[in-house]
Amino acid sequence: MKRLEHRASFGGWQQVWTHASTTLNCPMNLGLYLPPAALAGQACPVLYWLSGLTCTEQNFITKAGAQQFAAQHGLILVAPDTSPRGDGVANDAAYDLGQGAGFYLNATQAPWAPHFRMEDYVVHELPQVVSALLAEQGHQATARRGIFGHSMGGHGALTLALRHPGVYHSVSAFSPIVAPSQVPWGEKAFAAYLGEDRSAWLAHDAVALIANATERLPLLVDQGDADEFLQGQLKPELLQAACQQAGHPLTLRLQPGYDHSYYFIASFMAEHIAHHAAALNA
Amino acid sequence: MKRLEHRASFGGWQQVWTHASTTLNCPMNLGLYLPPAALAGQACPVLYWLSGLTCTEQNFITKAGAQQFAAQHGLILVAPDTSPRGDGVANDAAYDLGQGAGFYLNATQAPWAPHFRMEDYVVHELPQVVSALLAEQGHQATARRGIFGHSMGGHGALTLALRHPGVYHSVSAFSPIVAPSQVPWGEKAFAAYLGEDRSAWLAHDAVALIANATERLPLLVDQGDADEFLQGQLKPELLQAACQQAGHPLTLRLQPGYDHSYYFIASFMAEHIAHHAAALNA
Repeated sequence: MKRLEHRASFGGWQQVWTHASTTLNCPMNLGLYLPPAALAGQACPVLYWLSGLTCTEQNFITKAGAQQFAAQHGLILVAPDTSPRGDGVANDAAYDLGQGAGFYLNATQAPWAPHFRMEDYVVHELPQVVSALLAEQGHQATARRGIFGHSMGGHGALTLALRHPGVYHSVSAFSPIVAPSQVPWGEKAFAAYLGEDRSAWLAHDAVALIANATERLPLLVDQGDADEFLQGQLKPELLQAACQQAGHPLTLRLQPGYDHSYYFIASFMAEHIAHHAAALNA
Repeated sequence: MKRLEHRASFGGWQQVWTHASTTLNCPMNLGLYLPPAALAGQACPVLYWLSGLTCTEQNFITKAGAQQFAAQHGLILVAPDTSPRGDGVANDAAYDLGQGAGFYLNATQAPWAPHFRMEDYVVHELPQVVSALLAEQGHQATARRGIFGHSMGGHGALTLALRHPGVYHSVSAFSPIVAPSQVPWGEKAFAAYLGEDRSAWLAHDAVALIANATERLPLLVDQGDADEFLQGQLKPELLQAACQQAGHPLTLRLQPGYDHSYYFIASFMAEHIAHHAAALNA
Protein backbone atom coordinates (compact mmCIF):
# COMPACT_ATOMS: atom_id res chain seq x y z
CA MET A 1 0.00 0.00 0.00
CA LYS A 2 1.46 3.30 -1.07
CA ARG A 3 0.17 6.81 -0.40
CA LEU A 4 -0.06 8.93 -3.55
CA GLU A 5 -1.73 12.04 -2.11
CA HIS A 6 -2.17 13.53 1.36
CA ARG A 7 -3.96 16.87 1.44
CA ALA A 8 -5.52 18.81 4.29
CA SER A 9 -9.25 19.25 3.68
CA PHE A 10 -11.84 20.75 6.04
CA GLY A 11 -9.76 19.94 9.09
CA GLY A 12 -9.14 16.33 8.00
CA TRP A 13 -7.05 14.60 5.36
CA GLN A 14 -7.98 13.67 1.81
CA GLN A 15 -5.66 10.86 0.80
CA VAL A 16 -5.20 8.72 -2.31
CA TRP A 17 -3.70 5.27 -1.90
CA THR A 18 -2.74 2.54 -4.32
CA HIS A 19 -2.63 -1.14 -3.39
CA ALA A 20 -2.26 -4.50 -5.12
CA SER A 21 -5.77 -5.95 -5.22
CA THR A 22 -5.85 -9.73 -4.83
CA THR A 23 -9.48 -9.81 -5.98
CA LEU A 24 -8.92 -7.84 -9.18
CA ASN A 25 -5.33 -8.95 -9.86
CA CYS A 26 -4.13 -5.41 -10.52
CA PRO A 27 -3.12 -2.25 -8.69
CA MET A 28 -6.10 -0.17 -7.53
CA ASN A 29 -6.33 3.46 -6.43
CA LEU A 30 -8.75 4.66 -3.79
CA GLY A 31 -9.64 7.96 -2.17
CA LEU A 32 -9.79 8.01 1.65
CA TYR A 33 -11.09 11.00 3.60
CA LEU A 34 -10.29 11.12 7.31
CA PRO A 35 -12.56 13.59 9.13
CA PRO A 36 -11.36 15.63 12.12
CA ALA A 37 -13.17 13.25 14.50
CA ALA A 38 -11.04 10.34 13.26
CA LEU A 39 -7.87 12.37 13.75
CA ALA A 40 -9.02 13.13 17.29
CA GLY A 41 -9.10 9.40 18.07
CA GLN A 42 -12.80 8.71 17.61
CA ALA A 43 -13.92 5.55 15.79
CA CYS A 44 -15.96 6.70 12.78
CA PRO A 45 -18.38 4.94 10.41
CA VAL A 46 -17.23 4.41 6.81
CA LEU A 47 -19.30 5.67 3.89
CA TYR A 48 -18.42 4.18 0.49
CA TRP A 49 -18.90 6.13 -2.75
CA LEU A 50 -19.19 4.34 -6.09
CA SER A 51 -18.59 6.49 -9.17
CA GLY A 52 -20.14 6.30 -12.62
CA LEU A 53 -18.93 5.35 -16.09
CA THR A 54 -15.48 6.70 -17.12
CA CYS A 55 -14.66 7.89 -13.59
CA THR A 56 -11.62 7.11 -11.45
CA GLU A 57 -11.19 7.71 -7.72
CA GLN A 58 -10.49 11.38 -8.57
CA ASN A 59 -13.92 12.59 -9.73
CA PHE A 60 -15.65 12.28 -6.38
CA ILE A 61 -12.82 13.60 -4.24
CA THR A 62 -12.21 16.70 -6.39
CA LYS A 63 -15.74 17.67 -7.46
CA ALA A 64 -18.48 16.35 -5.13
CA GLY A 65 -17.79 18.67 -2.19
CA ALA A 66 -18.41 15.80 0.25
CA GLN A 67 -15.49 16.38 2.64
CA GLN A 68 -17.17 19.44 4.18
CA PHE A 69 -20.16 17.38 5.32
CA ALA A 70 -18.19 14.24 6.21
CA ALA A 71 -16.13 16.51 8.47
CA GLN A 72 -19.28 17.88 10.12
CA HIS A 73 -20.78 14.44 10.75
CA GLY A 74 -17.58 12.50 11.52
CA LEU A 75 -17.75 10.07 8.60
CA ILE A 76 -14.81 8.40 6.84
CA LEU A 77 -15.27 8.50 3.04
CA VAL A 78 -13.89 5.80 0.72
CA ALA A 79 -13.99 6.24 -3.07
CA PRO A 80 -12.57 3.33 -5.11
CA ASP A 81 -11.84 3.32 -8.83
CA THR A 82 -14.66 2.07 -11.10
CA SER A 83 -12.94 -1.05 -12.49
CA PRO A 84 -9.68 -2.95 -12.65
CA ARG A 85 -7.18 -1.22 -14.94
CA GLY A 86 -3.86 -1.74 -16.67
CA ASP A 87 -2.21 -3.24 -19.71
CA GLY A 88 -2.92 -6.81 -18.63
CA VAL A 89 -6.61 -6.15 -18.01
CA ALA A 90 -9.27 -6.75 -20.70
CA ASN A 91 -10.71 -3.60 -22.21
CA ASP A 92 -13.03 -2.25 -24.87
CA ALA A 93 -12.76 0.93 -26.92
CA ALA A 94 -16.24 2.05 -25.82
CA TYR A 95 -16.62 4.20 -22.68
CA ASP A 96 -19.37 1.95 -21.31
CA LEU A 97 -17.59 -1.42 -21.27
CA GLY A 98 -14.32 -2.63 -19.76
CA GLN A 99 -11.94 -0.34 -17.91
CA GLY A 100 -13.88 2.49 -16.24
CA ALA A 101 -17.11 0.49 -16.50
CA GLY A 102 -16.95 -2.38 -13.98
CA PHE A 103 -20.66 -2.24 -13.05
CA TYR A 104 -19.91 -3.49 -9.51
CA LEU A 105 -20.44 -7.21 -10.25
CA ASN A 106 -18.30 -10.31 -10.69
CA ALA A 107 -17.99 -11.12 -14.40
CA THR A 108 -18.45 -14.76 -15.37
CA GLN A 109 -17.57 -14.46 -19.06
CA ALA A 110 -14.33 -14.28 -21.05
CA PRO A 111 -12.30 -12.11 -21.37
CA TRP A 112 -13.63 -10.28 -18.29
CA ALA A 113 -13.80 -12.93 -15.56
CA PRO A 114 -10.13 -12.89 -14.43
CA HIS A 115 -10.14 -9.22 -13.36
CA PHE A 116 -13.67 -7.81 -13.38
CA ARG A 117 -14.83 -8.76 -9.85
CA MET A 118 -15.85 -5.35 -8.51
CA GLU A 119 -18.58 -6.77 -6.26
CA ASP A 120 -16.13 -8.93 -4.32
CA TYR A 121 -13.66 -6.06 -4.32
CA VAL A 122 -16.05 -3.47 -2.90
CA VAL A 123 -17.89 -5.73 -0.45
CA HIS A 124 -15.03 -7.90 0.82
CA GLU A 125 -11.52 -6.71 -0.02
CA LEU A 126 -11.96 -2.93 0.17
CA PRO A 127 -13.16 -2.87 3.82
CA GLN A 128 -10.08 -4.90 4.78
CA VAL A 129 -7.82 -2.52 2.89
CA VAL A 130 -9.50 0.44 4.58
CA SER A 131 -9.12 -1.14 8.02
CA ALA A 132 -5.44 -1.69 7.34
CA LEU A 133 -4.97 1.88 6.10
CA LEU A 134 -6.71 3.24 9.18
CA ALA A 135 -4.76 1.02 11.56
CA GLU A 136 -1.47 1.98 9.92
CA GLN A 137 -2.29 5.63 10.65
CA GLY A 138 -3.59 5.04 14.17
CA HIS A 139 -7.28 5.55 13.34
CA GLN A 140 -10.26 3.26 13.53
CA ALA A 141 -13.68 2.66 12.01
CA THR A 142 -16.90 1.59 13.69
CA ALA A 143 -18.69 -1.51 12.40
CA ARG A 144 -21.30 0.59 10.60
CA ARG A 145 -21.04 1.12 6.83
CA GLY A 146 -23.02 3.13 4.33
CA ILE A 147 -22.86 3.13 0.55
CA PHE A 148 -23.86 5.61 -2.13
CA GLY A 149 -23.00 6.40 -5.71
CA HIS A 150 -23.83 8.04 -9.02
CA SER A 151 -25.29 6.58 -12.22
CA MET A 152 -23.47 3.21 -12.70
CA GLY A 153 -22.29 3.74 -9.12
CA GLY A 154 -25.87 4.36 -8.01
CA HIS A 155 -26.70 0.97 -9.51
CA GLY A 156 -23.72 -0.39 -7.57
CA ALA A 157 -24.83 1.13 -4.27
CA LEU A 158 -28.42 -0.09 -4.59
CA THR A 159 -27.57 -3.62 -5.75
CA LEU A 160 -24.72 -4.21 -3.30
CA ALA A 161 -26.90 -3.05 -0.40
CA LEU A 162 -29.79 -5.23 -1.58
CA ARG A 163 -27.59 -8.28 -2.27
CA HIS A 164 -25.75 -8.10 1.06
CA PRO A 165 -28.34 -7.50 3.78
CA GLY A 166 -26.84 -6.45 7.07
CA VAL A 167 -23.57 -5.29 5.53
CA TYR A 168 -24.67 -1.72 4.80
CA HIS A 169 -26.65 0.34 7.30
CA SER A 170 -27.55 3.17 4.92
CA VAL A 171 -27.83 3.58 1.17
CA SER A 172 -28.52 6.39 -1.29
CA ALA A 173 -28.00 7.18 -4.95
CA PHE A 174 -27.76 10.06 -7.41
CA SER A 175 -29.32 9.37 -10.83
CA PRO A 176 -28.83 5.58 -10.55
CA ILE A 177 -29.27 3.01 -13.30
CA VAL A 178 -32.12 1.30 -11.43
CA ALA A 179 -33.02 -1.38 -13.98
CA PRO A 180 -29.88 -2.31 -15.95
CA SER A 181 -31.64 -5.34 -17.46
CA GLN A 182 -34.03 -2.99 -19.25
CA VAL A 183 -31.75 -0.24 -20.61
CA PRO A 184 -28.93 -0.08 -23.20
CA TRP A 185 -26.02 0.56 -20.79
CA GLY A 186 -26.99 -2.41 -18.65
CA GLU A 187 -27.93 -4.74 -21.51
CA LYS A 188 -24.55 -4.20 -23.14
CA ALA A 189 -22.51 -4.61 -19.96
CA PHE A 190 -24.50 -7.51 -18.52
CA ALA A 191 -24.40 -9.46 -21.83
CA ALA A 192 -20.61 -9.03 -21.88
CA TYR A 193 -19.92 -9.70 -18.19
CA LEU A 194 -22.68 -12.20 -17.33
CA GLY A 195 -23.57 -13.76 -20.70
CA GLU A 196 -26.69 -13.80 -22.82
CA ASP A 197 -28.91 -15.60 -20.27
CA ARG A 198 -31.03 -12.73 -19.00
CA SER A 199 -32.20 -14.61 -15.91
CA ALA A 200 -28.68 -14.22 -14.46
CA TRP A 201 -28.95 -10.47 -14.90
CA LEU A 202 -31.81 -10.05 -12.45
CA ALA A 203 -29.56 -10.79 -9.49
CA HIS A 204 -27.76 -7.51 -10.28
CA ASP A 205 -30.81 -5.39 -11.10
CA ALA A 206 -32.10 -3.16 -8.29
CA VAL A 207 -35.68 -3.14 -9.57
CA ALA A 208 -35.69 -6.95 -9.75
CA LEU A 209 -34.01 -7.32 -6.35
CA ILE A 210 -36.50 -5.08 -4.52
CA ALA A 211 -39.29 -7.67 -4.78
CA ASN A 212 -37.43 -10.27 -2.75
CA ALA A 213 -35.38 -8.08 -0.44
CA THR A 214 -35.14 -9.61 3.04
CA GLU A 215 -34.24 -6.28 4.59
CA ARG A 216 -36.15 -3.06 3.95
CA LEU A 217 -33.29 -0.55 4.15
CA PRO A 218 -34.74 2.89 3.23
CA LEU A 219 -33.55 4.23 -0.13
CA LEU A 220 -32.84 7.91 -0.79
CA VAL A 221 -32.60 8.68 -4.52
CA ASP A 222 -32.13 12.09 -6.18
CA GLN A 223 -32.63 12.46 -9.92
CA GLY A 224 -32.32 15.59 -12.07
CA ASP A 225 -35.25 16.11 -14.43
CA ALA A 226 -32.94 17.68 -17.06
CA ASP A 227 -30.63 14.64 -16.96
CA GLU A 228 -29.78 13.69 -20.55
CA PHE A 229 -29.93 9.99 -19.62
CA LEU A 230 -33.22 10.11 -17.70
CA GLN A 231 -35.55 8.58 -20.28
CA GLY A 232 -33.13 6.22 -22.01
CA GLN A 233 -30.97 4.77 -19.24
CA LEU A 234 -32.17 5.70 -15.75
CA LYS A 235 -35.99 5.33 -15.56
CA PRO A 236 -36.52 6.04 -11.84
CA GLU A 237 -40.23 5.36 -12.29
CA LEU A 238 -39.36 1.65 -12.48
CA LEU A 239 -37.76 1.83 -9.04
CA GLN A 240 -40.73 3.73 -7.68
CA ALA A 241 -43.16 1.10 -8.98
CA ALA A 242 -41.07 -1.79 -7.63
CA CYS A 243 -40.79 -0.17 -4.19
CA GLN A 244 -44.51 0.56 -4.08
CA GLN A 245 -45.35 -3.02 -4.98
CA ALA A 246 -42.93 -4.50 -2.45
CA GLY A 247 -43.58 -1.97 0.30
CA HIS A 248 -39.94 -0.96 0.22
CA PRO A 249 -39.27 2.51 1.74
CA LEU A 250 -38.12 4.93 -0.97
CA THR A 251 -37.60 8.68 -1.01
CA LEU A 252 -37.34 9.57 -4.69
CA ARG A 253 -36.87 13.24 -5.50
CA LEU A 254 -37.03 14.63 -9.02
CA GLN A 255 -34.89 17.78 -8.90
CA PRO A 256 -36.02 20.37 -11.43
CA GLY A 257 -33.41 21.65 -13.88
CA TYR A 258 -30.55 19.42 -12.74
CA ASP A 259 -28.48 17.35 -15.17
CA HIS A 260 -26.22 14.29 -14.80
CA SER A 261 -23.08 16.17 -13.71
CA TYR A 262 -21.17 16.63 -10.47
CA TYR A 263 -22.81 20.08 -10.20
CA PHE A 264 -26.01 18.13 -9.47
CA ILE A 265 -24.26 15.78 -7.05
CA ALA A 266 -22.61 18.63 -5.14
CA SER A 267 -25.93 20.46 -4.82
CA PHE A 268 -27.51 17.63 -2.82
CA MET A 269 -24.43 16.18 -1.13
CA ALA A 270 -25.25 17.80 2.22
CA GLU A 271 -28.59 15.99 2.37
CA HIS A 272 -27.16 12.62 1.33
CA ILE A 273 -24.40 12.78 3.91
CA ALA A 274 -26.95 13.79 6.57
CA HIS A 275 -29.09 10.79 5.54
CA HIS A 276 -26.15 8.44 6.02
CA ALA A 277 -24.96 10.10 9.22
CA ALA A 278 -28.39 9.68 10.81
CA ALA A 279 -28.18 5.91 10.29
CA LEU A 280 -24.46 5.42 10.79
CA ASN A 281 -24.03 7.53 13.90
CA ALA A 282 -27.19 6.12 15.50
CA MET B 1 -21.28 35.50 -27.07
CA LYS B 2 -22.06 31.80 -27.01
CA ARG B 3 -23.14 29.64 -24.09
CA LEU B 4 -21.04 26.47 -23.77
CA GLU B 5 -22.46 25.10 -20.48
CA HIS B 6 -25.63 25.66 -18.46
CA ARG B 7 -25.92 23.49 -15.36
CA ALA B 8 -28.20 23.73 -12.33
CA SER B 9 -26.12 24.23 -9.19
CA PHE B 10 -27.39 24.93 -5.66
CA GLY B 11 -30.64 26.38 -6.92
CA GLY B 12 -28.89 28.64 -9.46
CA TRP B 13 -27.08 28.18 -12.78
CA GLN B 14 -23.41 27.55 -13.40
CA GLN B 15 -22.75 28.67 -16.96
CA VAL B 16 -19.70 28.82 -19.21
CA TRP B 17 -19.65 31.40 -22.00
CA THR B 18 -17.21 32.20 -24.77
CA HIS B 19 -16.90 35.64 -26.34
CA ALA B 20 -14.59 37.49 -28.72
CA SER B 21 -12.44 39.72 -26.51
CA THR B 22 -11.57 43.04 -28.13
CA THR B 23 -8.94 43.69 -25.45
CA LEU B 24 -7.12 40.39 -25.87
CA ASN B 25 -7.84 39.86 -29.57
CA CYS B 26 -8.91 36.25 -29.10
CA PRO B 27 -11.91 34.21 -27.94
CA MET B 28 -12.16 33.96 -24.14
CA ASN B 29 -14.11 31.57 -21.91
CA LEU B 30 -15.59 32.56 -18.60
CA GLY B 31 -17.58 30.89 -15.85
CA LEU B 32 -20.71 32.71 -14.64
CA TYR B 33 -22.67 31.57 -11.59
CA LEU B 34 -26.17 32.99 -11.16
CA PRO B 35 -27.43 32.53 -7.59
CA PRO B 36 -31.10 31.89 -6.79
CA ALA B 37 -31.53 35.53 -5.76
CA ALA B 38 -30.55 36.69 -9.26
CA LEU B 39 -33.03 34.25 -10.80
CA ALA B 40 -35.70 35.69 -8.50
CA GLY B 41 -35.16 39.15 -9.99
CA GLN B 42 -32.89 40.63 -7.35
CA ALA B 43 -29.88 42.72 -8.41
CA CYS B 44 -26.78 40.98 -7.00
CA PRO B 45 -23.15 42.07 -6.48
CA VAL B 46 -20.51 40.43 -8.70
CA LEU B 47 -17.52 38.64 -7.17
CA TYR B 48 -14.62 38.01 -9.57
CA TRP B 49 -12.30 35.01 -9.14
CA LEU B 50 -8.82 34.98 -10.67
CA SER B 51 -7.19 31.55 -11.00
CA GLY B 52 -3.55 30.55 -10.77
CA LEU B 53 -0.91 29.32 -13.19
CA THR B 54 -2.03 26.65 -15.71
CA CYS B 55 -5.72 27.09 -14.86
CA THR B 56 -8.63 27.80 -17.17
CA GLU B 57 -12.14 28.94 -16.22
CA GLN B 58 -12.88 25.31 -15.29
CA ASN B 59 -10.74 24.81 -12.18
CA PHE B 60 -12.64 27.20 -9.95
CA ILE B 61 -16.13 26.26 -11.09
CA THR B 62 -15.57 22.49 -10.73
CA LYS B 63 -13.38 22.28 -7.61
CA ALA B 64 -13.68 25.31 -5.30
CA GLY B 65 -17.17 24.59 -3.96
CA ALA B 66 -18.03 28.29 -4.13
CA GLN B 67 -21.52 28.05 -5.62
CA GLN B 68 -23.01 26.79 -2.34
CA PHE B 69 -21.96 29.95 -0.50
CA ALA B 70 -22.63 32.34 -3.39
CA ALA B 71 -26.16 30.92 -3.41
CA GLN B 72 -26.52 31.54 0.34
CA HIS B 73 -25.30 35.14 0.12
CA GLY B 74 -26.79 36.11 -3.25
CA LEU B 75 -23.52 36.79 -5.08
CA ILE B 76 -22.88 36.41 -8.81
CA LEU B 77 -19.52 34.67 -9.44
CA VAL B 78 -17.37 35.36 -12.50
CA ALA B 79 -14.30 33.25 -13.29
CA PRO B 80 -12.33 34.22 -16.40
CA ASP B 81 -9.55 32.24 -18.04
CA THR B 82 -5.99 33.08 -16.92
CA SER B 83 -4.65 34.45 -20.21
CA PRO B 84 -5.40 34.94 -23.89
CA ARG B 85 -5.16 31.67 -25.80
CA GLY B 86 -5.07 30.28 -29.30
CA ASP B 87 -2.79 29.53 -32.23
CA GLY B 88 -2.29 33.19 -33.04
CA VAL B 89 -1.32 34.10 -29.45
CA ALA B 90 2.31 34.12 -28.28
CA ASN B 91 3.25 31.25 -25.99
CA ASP B 92 6.12 29.59 -24.16
CA ALA B 93 6.72 25.93 -23.43
CA ALA B 94 7.02 26.61 -19.69
CA TYR B 95 3.92 26.44 -17.49
CA ASP B 96 4.70 29.79 -15.88
CA LEU B 97 4.90 32.04 -18.95
CA GLY B 98 2.54 32.74 -21.84
CA GLN B 99 -0.80 30.98 -22.22
CA GLY B 100 -2.19 30.05 -18.80
CA ALA B 101 0.13 32.58 -17.13
CA GLY B 102 -1.16 36.08 -17.93
CA PHE B 103 -0.29 37.57 -14.50
CA TYR B 104 -3.20 40.04 -14.72
CA LEU B 105 -1.21 42.91 -16.24
CA ASN B 106 -0.85 44.60 -19.63
CA ALA B 107 2.36 43.43 -21.31
CA THR B 108 4.52 46.11 -22.90
CA GLN B 109 7.10 43.83 -24.54
CA ALA B 110 7.24 41.72 -27.70
CA PRO B 111 5.92 39.18 -28.45
CA TRP B 112 3.37 39.53 -25.63
CA ALA B 113 1.99 43.06 -25.98
CA PRO B 114 -0.63 42.43 -28.71
CA HIS B 115 -2.65 39.91 -26.67
CA PHE B 116 -1.47 39.83 -23.05
CA ARG B 117 -3.60 42.63 -21.57
CA MET B 118 -5.31 40.80 -18.73
CA GLU B 119 -5.52 43.88 -16.48
CA ASP B 120 -7.58 45.81 -19.02
CA TYR B 121 -9.59 42.69 -19.72
CA VAL B 122 -10.51 41.96 -16.10
CA VAL B 123 -11.02 45.55 -14.95
CA HIS B 124 -12.70 47.05 -18.02
CA GLU B 125 -13.96 44.58 -20.62
CA LEU B 126 -15.08 41.70 -18.41
CA PRO B 127 -17.61 43.75 -16.36
CA GLN B 128 -19.20 44.93 -19.62
CA VAL B 129 -19.37 41.36 -20.90
CA VAL B 130 -20.94 40.25 -17.63
CA SER B 131 -23.49 43.06 -17.75
CA ALA B 132 -24.42 42.05 -21.28
CA LEU B 133 -24.72 38.38 -20.32
CA LEU B 134 -26.91 39.26 -17.36
CA ALA B 135 -29.10 41.62 -19.38
CA GLU B 136 -29.53 39.02 -22.13
CA GLN B 137 -30.89 36.62 -19.51
CA GLY B 138 -33.06 39.17 -17.72
CA HIS B 139 -30.86 39.51 -14.63
CA GLN B 140 -28.93 42.42 -13.18
CA ALA B 141 -25.93 43.25 -11.04
CA THR B 142 -25.53 45.92 -8.39
CA ALA B 143 -22.69 48.42 -8.72
CA ARG B 144 -20.64 46.65 -6.05
CA ARG B 145 -17.80 44.34 -7.06
CA GLY B 146 -15.44 42.09 -5.15
CA ILE B 147 -12.33 40.27 -6.33
CA PHE B 148 -10.41 37.26 -5.06
CA GLY B 149 -8.05 34.65 -6.40
CA HIS B 150 -5.41 31.99 -5.85
CA SER B 151 -1.63 32.13 -6.23
CA MET B 152 -1.01 34.10 -9.46
CA GLY B 153 -4.71 34.98 -9.20
CA GLY B 154 -4.18 36.10 -5.60
CA HIS B 155 -1.52 38.47 -6.93
CA GLY B 156 -4.07 39.57 -9.53
CA ALA B 157 -6.79 40.23 -6.96
CA LEU B 158 -4.51 42.20 -4.63
CA THR B 159 -2.84 44.29 -7.33
CA LEU B 160 -5.99 45.06 -9.31
CA ALA B 161 -7.79 46.14 -6.13
CA LEU B 162 -4.82 48.28 -5.08
CA ARG B 163 -4.29 49.80 -8.57
CA HIS B 164 -7.97 50.66 -9.09
CA PRO B 165 -9.25 52.26 -5.88
CA GLY B 166 -13.02 52.49 -5.72
CA VAL B 167 -13.57 49.78 -8.32
CA TYR B 168 -13.57 46.83 -5.92
CA HIS B 169 -15.39 46.93 -2.61
CA SER B 170 -13.87 43.76 -1.17
CA VAL B 171 -10.73 41.70 -1.80
CA SER B 172 -9.23 38.45 -0.57
CA ALA B 173 -6.66 35.90 -1.65
CA PHE B 174 -5.61 32.29 -1.16
CA SER B 175 -1.82 31.72 -1.14
CA PRO B 176 -1.10 34.82 -3.26
CA ILE B 177 2.19 35.78 -4.87
CA VAL B 178 2.46 38.95 -2.77
CA ALA B 179 5.82 40.23 -4.01
CA PRO B 180 6.33 39.10 -7.62
CA SER B 181 9.33 41.43 -8.00
CA GLN B 182 11.18 39.38 -5.39
CA VAL B 183 10.42 35.76 -6.37
CA PRO B 184 11.26 33.53 -9.39
CA TRP B 185 7.72 33.23 -10.83
CA GLY B 186 7.29 37.00 -10.84
CA GLU B 187 10.82 37.85 -11.96
CA LYS B 188 10.50 35.58 -14.98
CA ALA B 189 7.03 36.81 -15.98
CA PHE B 190 7.65 40.51 -15.30
CA ALA B 191 10.95 40.50 -17.23
CA ALA B 192 9.15 38.96 -20.20
CA TYR B 193 5.97 41.04 -20.07
CA LEU B 194 7.27 44.37 -18.70
CA GLY B 195 10.96 44.34 -19.64
CA GLU B 196 14.17 44.33 -17.63
CA ASP B 197 13.63 47.71 -15.91
CA ARG B 198 12.62 46.59 -12.44
CA SER B 199 11.17 49.97 -11.48
CA ALA B 200 8.26 49.26 -13.85
CA TRP B 201 7.55 46.03 -11.96
CA LEU B 202 6.69 47.74 -8.69
CA ALA B 203 3.41 49.06 -10.11
CA HIS B 204 2.24 45.41 -10.27
CA ASP B 205 3.65 44.20 -6.94
CA ALA B 206 1.21 44.11 -4.02
CA VAL B 207 3.90 44.60 -1.38
CA ALA B 208 5.23 47.66 -3.23
CA LEU B 209 1.74 49.07 -3.86
CA ILE B 210 0.66 48.86 -0.21
CA ALA B 211 2.93 51.74 0.84
CA ASN B 212 1.20 54.27 -1.40
CA ALA B 213 -2.33 52.92 -1.44
CA THR B 214 -4.87 55.76 -1.38
CA GLU B 215 -7.62 53.46 -0.14
CA ARG B 216 -7.22 51.09 2.81
CA LEU B 217 -9.46 48.22 1.64
CA PRO B 218 -9.09 45.42 4.23
CA LEU B 219 -7.25 42.34 2.93
CA LEU B 220 -8.15 38.76 3.89
CA VAL B 221 -5.38 36.29 3.03
CA ASP B 222 -5.27 32.56 3.79
CA GLN B 223 -2.05 30.62 3.34
CA GLY B 224 -1.36 26.93 3.96
CA ASP B 225 1.77 26.29 6.00
CA ALA B 226 2.45 23.05 4.08
CA ASP B 227 2.27 24.87 0.74
CA GLU B 228 5.16 23.69 -1.41
CA PHE B 229 5.61 27.23 -2.77
CA LEU B 230 5.45 29.07 0.56
CA GLN B 231 9.14 29.83 1.07
CA GLY B 232 10.23 30.21 -2.54
CA GLN B 233 7.39 32.04 -4.27
CA LEU B 234 4.72 33.30 -1.85
CA LYS B 235 6.41 34.88 1.21
CA PRO B 236 3.31 36.21 3.02
CA GLU B 237 5.60 37.72 5.69
CA LEU B 238 6.52 40.41 3.16
CA LEU B 239 2.85 41.41 2.86
CA GLN B 240 2.47 41.40 6.61
CA ALA B 241 5.48 43.70 7.04
CA ALA B 242 4.30 46.08 4.30
CA CYS B 243 0.80 46.28 5.79
CA GLN B 244 2.16 46.89 9.29
CA GLN B 245 4.41 49.67 8.05
CA ALA B 246 1.66 51.34 6.02
CA GLY B 247 -1.13 50.77 8.51
CA HIS B 248 -3.05 48.76 5.92
CA PRO B 249 -5.68 46.42 7.42
CA LEU B 250 -4.69 42.78 6.84
CA THR B 251 -6.06 39.51 8.19
CA LEU B 252 -3.37 36.94 7.36
CA ARG B 253 -4.06 33.40 8.48
CA LEU B 254 -1.47 30.63 8.29
CA GLN B 255 -3.51 27.43 8.02
CA PRO B 256 -1.69 24.44 9.50
CA GLY B 257 -1.25 21.43 7.23
CA TYR B 258 -2.79 22.92 4.12
CA ASP B 259 -1.06 22.83 0.72
CA HIS B 260 -1.44 24.83 -2.51
CA SER B 261 -4.37 22.82 -3.94
CA TYR B 262 -8.08 23.38 -4.42
CA TYR B 263 -8.63 21.19 -1.31
CA PHE B 264 -7.19 24.13 0.62
CA ILE B 265 -9.26 26.68 -1.29
CA ALA B 266 -12.50 24.72 -0.79
CA SER B 267 -11.82 24.38 2.94
CA PHE B 268 -11.89 28.16 3.48
CA MET B 269 -14.25 29.20 0.70
CA ALA B 270 -17.18 29.72 3.09
CA GLU B 271 -15.23 32.30 5.07
CA HIS B 272 -13.97 34.16 1.99
CA ILE B 273 -17.44 34.38 0.46
CA ALA B 274 -18.80 35.61 3.81
CA HIS B 275 -16.05 38.25 3.91
CA HIS B 276 -17.05 39.51 0.46
CA ALA B 277 -20.77 39.29 1.14
CA ALA B 278 -20.42 41.44 4.25
CA ALA B 279 -18.90 44.24 2.15
CA LEU B 280 -20.87 43.74 -1.06
CA ASN B 281 -24.33 43.34 0.45
CA ALA B 282 -23.78 46.24 2.87
